[in-house]
Amino acid sequence: MTNVLVLNHEEIDSLLTIPEAIESVEAAYVAKENETGTLFPVISHEFSSGSGELDIKSGHLRTSRVYGIKLVSWFAENQDFSLPEKYATSLLFDDRTGEPLALLNASGLTNMRTGAAAAISMKYLAREDSKALLMVGMGALSPYLVAAAFFAMPSLDTVYLYNPHGIEKAQQREPEFTDKLRKLLIPLKDKKYTISIIENLPETVAKSDIIVTATPSRIPLLMADWLKPGTHICAIGSDLRGKQELDSFILNKAVIYVDDKNQASDIGETEIPLRHGLIRLDSIKEISELIVAKERGRKTEEEITVFDATGIALQDLSISKRIYDLAVRANIGISVGL
Amino acid sequence: MTNVLVLNHEEIDSLLTIPEAIESVEAAYVAKENETGTLFPVISHEFSSGSGELDIKSGHLRTSRVYGIKLVSWFAENQDFSLPEKYATSLLFDDRTGEPLALLNASGLTNMRTGAAAAISMKYLAREDSKALLMVGMGALSPYLVAAAFFAMPSLDTVYLYNPHGIEKAQQREPEFTDKLRKLLIPLKDKKYTISIIENLPETVAKSDIIVTATPSRIPLLMADWLKPGTHICAIGSDLRGKQELDSFILNKAVIYVDDKNQASDIGETEIPLRHGLIRLDSIKEISELIVAKERGRKTEEEITVFDATGIALQDLSISKRIYDLAVRANIGISVGL
Repeated sequence: MTNVLVLNHEEIDSLLTIPEAIESVEAAYVAKENETGTLFPVISHEFSSGSGELDIKSGHLRTSRVYGIKLVSWFAENQDFSLPEKYATSLLFDDRTGEPLALLNASGLTNMRTGAAAAISMKYLAREDSKALLMVGMGALSPYLVAAAFFAMPSLDTVYLYNPHGIEKAQQREPEFTDKLRKLLIPLKDKKYTISIIENLPETVAKSDIIVTATPSRIPLLMADWLKPGTHICAIGSDLRGKQELDSFILNKAVIYVDDKNQASDIGETEIPLRHGLIRLDSIKEISELIVAKERGRKTEEEITVFDATGIALQDLSISKRIYDLAVRANIGISVGL
Repeated sequence: MTNVLVLNHEEIDSLLTIPEAIESVEAAYVAKENETGTLFPVISHEFSSGSGELDIKSGHLRTSRVYGIKLVSWFAENQDFSLPEKYATSLLFDDRTGEPLALLNASGLTNMRTGAAAAISMKYLAREDSKALLMVGMGALSPYLVAAAFFAMPSLDTVYLYNPHGIEKAQQREPEFTDKLRKLLIPLKDKKYTISIIENLPETVAKSDIIVTATPSRIPLLMADWLKPGTHICAIGSDLRGKQELDSFILNKAVIYVDDKNQASDIGETEIPLRHGLIRLDSIKEISELIVAKERGRKTEEEITVFDATGIALQDLSISKRIYDLAVRANIGISVGL
């Protein structure tokens, strides 16, 4: 009988720090660039009711000696039954024998790896003296995105929060956001920063150095002429055909990096501008190139840079294996015979 | 926190009988034909060492209100480390909310559903008075295939066993085979049958009414001119491009049914004869048509019939949900918080 380690949400959150997540995601990018990692085709399914969707991402990360899979589902009506809208579940396997190693609640690790991916893009693309970050969207992912930004960008000290559902919703969600952020920032000790909820989006965009969007929007939320020169944008929300958070004209004039070119152009923020001919496929580069070359992607302080993240299986695998190793060492989780 | 039920190999084997497996697989075929079931694309991966391979089958079975995934890996060198060559692991989800329901060791259920699929093909395609069954291949799957045949074909009373690795290997494996078969046949009580190991394949083929092949062969094991009229063949082994158990001329003159036309023509027994132009795609039919029409596929007692099974996710889903329900009712398995 094989033993599989089951790791729940709280255990995973307690095992990994953001700097470790950033390291793991960088390692995943290096594997992608060096072709020591393989992405299997992404499977997407929309449930016929129209109220649910599902995606399955899988791959093989040779450098971590694992392969695996992550299923993420989203059912809008779950809220009516006090259930989470999103479930994310991962299985991890040893690539030398095929033995199943772990079953993980992948919600926490997805938040971690997405925060890390955004932070890595800031390291390579944002202006080094960036001070103000605007967070658009206040879902479960948002504190991870902001916390990771603080680890990657030491000069950041101002956070603006914007909730597209309105200021009241923003105020309701703020305590939870702040609490989670504080916990994630514990390793940074005496980091000083201010947080404010904002209502006037164009005005705040104009004074932000970094903007992170993480909403399920299907209509652009940010307009090209609101931006000041030199802004870096992380477009995190678009991960299905038809989703769009940024006005296509932003991408038209920006330097664009993505996590995976095929996936981003298919389901990411670049999909619609590409389809409308406002950007060209050959103007899109993968962030992993910069990481392997140890090179910053910004050529001037005035450029607008965009990072379009759709999330790739190698990130999940890299971080899952790290969590698994930490759990084994700390004797955390439940081992069950399969 | 969500609870996931973990079901190991022994638990699964103890929960399900072959008649229940046959019922579940028939229900899966009905769902396929009625389009209440969806197959997601199959993912295959060969590990660069060349000694391992992996496939991921997933889908959505609305009639059972579940979706899910099965990963099967095969590493030849595992035997050197006293590990099983094959691992099969399934995850099952509720299609109304996305909640993960169960983690299953899918080896046993794969054996069950494959045995059931072969038996269903016999019900619809073999001669009703079939007495002698030849089993080619003596792997872990073989007792399930033979047992299921006994449930589907009441007139069967003779089993010939052939191991392509030679008679000594066959003799070594016989006690385990016989023991497993006896256990699987318990519900049939006083069923009388004989089992013999055979060496002369052409001679035995000529006196068999039903032949089941379940080997990883890449060269044909059965030749067209060995067969007697009216034989039904279940070709189970071919499930990857390049595998072949039957001489292409057998398919050239046979009535052919498959479990899934796309998959069979891509990775099944029909792949090579199709590629060589010895059969035409429009001469291949899906077994689910017969089941929904409640119609036998054999028009005369002299036809050679072939069932080419590559295994489809809907079978796994149907049987997994049945096992899950039985386990919940019997309070079997370990429930872990995720």
